[in-house]
Amino acid sequence: MTKIKVAIVGYGNIGRYALEAVQAAEDFELVGVVRRNIQDIPAELAGYSVVDQIEKLGKVDVALLCSPTRAIGELAENILSLGINTVDSFDVHSDIVALKNRLDKVAKAHDSVAIVSAGWDPGSDSIMRTLMLAMAPKGVTYTNFGPGMSMGHSVAAKAVEGVRDALSVTIPLGTGVHRRMVYVELEKQADFAEVSRVIKADKYFSSDETHIRQVDSIDALKDVGHGVHMTHKGVSGATHNQLFEYSMRINNPALTSQFMVSAARATMKQAAGAFTVIEIPPVHFLQGDLDKLIAKLV
Amino acid sequence: MTKIKVAIVGYGNIGRYALEAVQAAEDFELVGVVRRNIQDIPAELAGYSVVDQIEKLGKVDVALLCSPTRAIGELAENILSLGINTVDSFDVHSDIVALKNRLDKVAKAHDSVAIVSAGWDPGSDSIMRTLMLAMAPKGVTYTNFGPGMSMGHSVAAKAVEGVRDALSVTIPLGTGVHRRMVYVELEKQADFAEVSRVIKADKYFSSDETHIRQVDSIDALKDVGHGVHMTHKGVSGATHNQLFEYSMRINNPALTSQFMVSAARATMKQAAGAFTVIEIPPVHFLQGDLDKLIAKLV
Repeated sequence: MTKIKVAIVGYGNIGRYALEAVQAAEDFELVGVVRRNIQDIPAELAGYSVVDQIEKLGKVDVALLCSPTRAIGELAENILSLGINTVDSFDVHSDIVALKNRLDKVAKAHDSVAIVSAGWDPGSDSIMRTLMLAMAPKGVTYTNFGPGMSMGHSVAAKAVEGVRDALSVTIPLGTGVHRRMVYVELEKQADFAEVSRVIKADKYFSSDETHIRQVDSIDALKDVGHGVHMTHKGVSGATHNQLFEYSMRINNPALTSQFMVSAARATMKQAAGAFTVIEIPPVHFLQGDLDKLIAKLV
Repeated sequence: MTKIKVAIVGYGNIGRYALEAVQAAEDFELVGVVRRNIQDIPAELAGYSVVDQIEKLGKVDVALLCSPTRAIGELAENILSLGINTVDSFDVHSDIVALKNRLDKVAKAHDSVAIVSAGWDPGSDSIMRTLMLAMAPKGVTYTNFGPGMSMGHSVAAKAVEGVRDALSVTIPLGTGVHRRMVYVELEKQADFAEVSRVIKADKYFSSDETHIRQVDSIDALKDVGHGVHMTHKGVSGATHNQLFEYSMRINNPALTSQFMVSAARATMKQAAGAFTVIEIPPVHFLQGDLDKLIAKLV
C-alpha cells in the first residue's frame, strides 16, 4: 500500500494530538513536523524531521494545518501553491465561505485540494445539521455546546487587564442558549469587581448569561473534555413531529485532530479546489476498500 | 428555476408519502405516477398523469422506485436504460453491494445515475455509522431499532398458515439486541400453539427473543412510528472513551420517502453510475445555493 505522506504544520495542542491520530492511521506516513522553533524537539518527535519550512520535507501529499485560526488563510494559500493539499479546523463560522472561495482559486491553479473547517463545529456537527435537513427539511435545529472549555472565550477573558489566567466553560441551557462560567486567576493588584465588569461587557460574553468566579489556580481546572447535543424537530414531506437527536462527549483536541486526519485522507480523492466537509462523500473519510466499507456500514 | 422532473413508480405506502414529499419540495415537478392498475386513481392523484409504463410520461429526470425490495433490481435496470436516474430504498443489507455493482454498469452505459438503499437503514443511518468511524475509527457501534413495526418481520409472520394478519414490533434491548413482539390475528380453524411454534422457528425470528400474542384485530394496532438509537464508543487517535449517540423517533414511510426525494435531488449532481448514500456529498441532498447552505450549516 502506498501511504499518504502527511506533514503536521504547527505543533501546539492540536498538533500534538494530530501526531497520535497520524500514528494510529496505518495508511499515513508522517513525513515531518513544521514549526517555528526547531530547537524545541519534544521526546515524541525524536525520529521525525522537524523543520521550519515545509519545502524542506521533500514530497508531501497533504498538510494538517494545526496553527491558530487567524493564521490559516495565508498559510493554506502558501502550501496549496506548492501543490500540497491542506486540511484545517478554521472555526470562525461567519468567515468560512470567504476562506473557502479564497483557497478554491489557489487550489485550482496549483492542482491541490483544501478541506476547510474540518474540526467538530464547524466540522462533523455541520454534516449532522445537513443530514437532519435532508431527513426533515422544515423545522428548527438547536446545537447545544458543552459542558466544556471554550478556547475562544478563555482567550478573550485572559486578555482582560489584571487577569493572569482564565478559563471559560460553556454550559448548555437548551434550545441553543448557553451560560458562560468564567474562572479567573488575578494579578495581585487587580480588582475582581472591575475585571468582572470588563469581561461581562466584552462582545464574547455580553449576550450570554455570564458568571465570573475567582480561583487560585486555573491550571487545576483544565479539562479538555467537551460535548454537544443537537436536536432537530421537523417535517418530512407533510408529516410533522419527526424527532432527531445527536450528542457526543469527547476529548476536544483529540476529536478535532482525528477528524482532520480523516479529512486529509479525503483530500486524496477530490478534484482540485477547496471544499467544506458537507461537500465530501462521507465514505472518503475512511480507510479501506469501498465495497467492504459499503457492506459493513450501509 | 428549472424544476427536476420526477416520477413516482409504485403507489403503495411509500409511494403515497413520496407524493407528499415531492409536493413539499419546490424544486421538483411531479410528471406522473407509474402503477400496474391505472383504473384505480385515488383522489390525491387527480390532476396527475397515472400510467402503466414510465415511457408514457415524456421527459423524466429521476424516478422514485417505491416498489417492494425484491422488484427493485430489474425495475431499476429498465429505467436506468432509458437514461432516467433512479432512487430506491432497497433494504436487504447483505445484497446492497451486488445491487449497486449491477446497476452501476447499466447506469454508466446509459448516462444515468442510481442512488441505492436511500431510506433510513440502510440510508441515513448508514451515513451516521460512517461519520462515527471518521471521528473515532476504533470502537464498537451499536444500532438499536424501535420500538416500531418491522415490515419484513410482519410479512414473514403473516405468511404462516392459519395467520390472517400479523404485526411484528421490534423492541430495542440495547447493544444491538432486539426483542420481537409478534401480534397475530388467526383464521378460525388455526391452532395458536402451532402458529407460535412455526413463527418462532422461522429464520426471521429464530435468533431473537420472540413473543407471540393473539389479538382480535391487527388493524387496531397499526402505527407506522419507528425509531433508532445508535451509539459509538471509540478511540480518536490515541484517546479512548470518545462517546457518540444518535437517535430519532419518526413516521417510518414519511422519513423513507423524504430521504428518497433528497437523494433524487442528489442524483442530478452525480456523474453516471450507481452509488450508495455514503458516497454522496451530504449537501447535495439539499435544495439551494451552495454558499448559502455552507454559511447556514457549516
